[in-house]
Amino acid sequence: MSNSKYLKKIIIDRVNGDETIEVEDVTIEEARLTVYLNGEKIISMMCIPKDQEAHTIGFLMSENVITDISDVKEMKLSEDGLRVDIKAAVDTDSLQNLYKEKTLVSGCGGGVTGNVAGNLEIQFNQTNFVISPKVISDEVKKFYADSELYKLTGCVHKAMLFLEDETIITAEDIGRHNAIDKVVGKCKIDGLNTDKAVLFVSGRLSSEMVVKAVMHRIPIIVSRTAPTYLGVQTANTHGTTLIGFARGRKMNIYTHSGRVHD
Amino acid sequence: MSNSKYLKKIIIDRVNGDETIEVEDVTIEEARLTVYLNGEKIISMMCIPKDQEAHTIGFLMSENVITDISDVKEMKLSEDGLRVDIKAAVDTDSLQNLYKEKTLVSGCGGGVTGNVAGNLEIQFNQTNFVISPKVISDEVKKFYADSELYKLTGCVHKAMLFLEDETIITAEDIGRHNAIDKVVGKCKIDGLNTDKAVLFVSGRLSSEMVVKAVMHRIPIIVSRTAPTYLGVQTANTHGTTLIGFARGRKMNIYTHSGRVHD
Repeated sequence: MSNSKYLKKIIIDRVNGDETIEVEDVTIEEARLTVYLNGEKIISMMCIPKDQEAHTIGFLMSENVITDISDVKEMKLSEDGLRVDIKAAVDTDSLQNLYKEKTLVSGCGGGVTGNVAGNLEIQFNQTNFVISPKVISDEVKKFYADSELYKLTGCVHKAMLFLEDETIITAEDIGRHNAIDKVVGKCKIDGLNTDKAVLFVSGRLSSEMVVKAVMHRIPIIVSRTAPTYLGVQTANTHGTTLIGFARGRKMNIYTHSGRVHD
Repeated sequence: MSNSKYLKKIIIDRVNGDETIEVEDVTIEEARLTVYLNGEKIISMMCIPKDQEAHTIGFLMSENVITDISDVKEMKLSEDGLRVDIKAAVDTDSLQNLYKEKTLVSGCGGGVTGNVAGNLEIQFNQTNFVISPKVISDEVKKFYADSELYKLTGCVHKAMLFLEDETIITAEDIGRHNAIDKVVGKCKIDGLNTDKAVLFVSGRLSSEMVVKAVMHRIPIIVSRTAPTYLGVQTANTHGTTLIGFARGRKMNIYTHSGRVHD
């Protein structure tokens, strides 16, 4: 199993009422991935050490530190998988924003930090991309049917990009921000266009989750759980279609529902 | 209802199969709380702007920036509730660690940053505090029975401290880290001892959640969901009893199970 290397076996005491038995259990690996940009350590991220390059690219592009994949000159992952060295042309202001103010975000996975604060002028998303509610419901169903690490550990978030040509890209991580950065990073590295895509996430939609979709010009974001009020406001302001509580054939459309019809 | 001010009413499109109706829905407020320590802006946190002082104290003590509540000379919350000004004697090294390295954590709510990296020498927890599995199960049941904001928004994490004298302190936030910082901060402000307490949390137990319990010398942490492998290792190293998947009369005890018996 390709994911087995991220699963750690342990012995635990399983209590059931007055009975306790020793059993083998499995937990998910969590490690500190450190990113060196142009020779300087810029950040560490607690994550599943998987898809590290995609994670790094997705994060730096979410933060606008790297504005285009073509600005990446070189990327190298250390043998232990815990260090990414990347050489790239950077947006100096956005890189400074990473340090200017440390913002602790509410959503699993750290994520958008200095650059959430409206430092960036982001155009209102005007794309005419539309999708039917039926397709969304069908994809949500598949999304949960296929989440191996979650099933095994109960401790993993998943993100999926459903592209215009129905290509599906997925990523999993202990943090839902990381999962988004990883799935977006995979698309950027493969040169896939996310301007007409739907981002499915397993976690709640707090503002910084929405900001990631906004930053990457992803027009539609879908979760099976709830958004925050600021998440809704952020989506509304930037022309992003925000859908929550997508379960079965039901869903709540919070903003820009015009993109969802047959 | 005391919490109503954090609930924001919005109009949404509720889709059910081929039918769409416009309905009023409620979402949770999410705001950026900025902390000024001795006149300097040190951090912002995305959170529910509630219990801001407790949140600030809990966070700074989780980070070891403030080592004792008596070091706090003055604390003031701005009228809009989005800025806390605190004057306190600080641990300079720990304050520097907040900036030295930015670590994005995997758990909801940012939280432990520079100081998770083993910069601090923390004693192995040797407390002889014990609790029966029955009490844990009973408290887990109450814990979920009483989570108003979660019920209303589906977007809130909760933390509860069950003290030796059975005093119960609770806090809720969009971030599970924030919820822990808030509930610990409440105890510190009220001079309540958490050395013989059980911390109940609604979220997953990634390492930085466990580190908070370790930092505050809380001997037992209980969640209804899963820990990460690093979370288990962290608890094991520091003598913290880690319990996950606490549901009904069942629970998994991952570390130091000696504290759990009748």
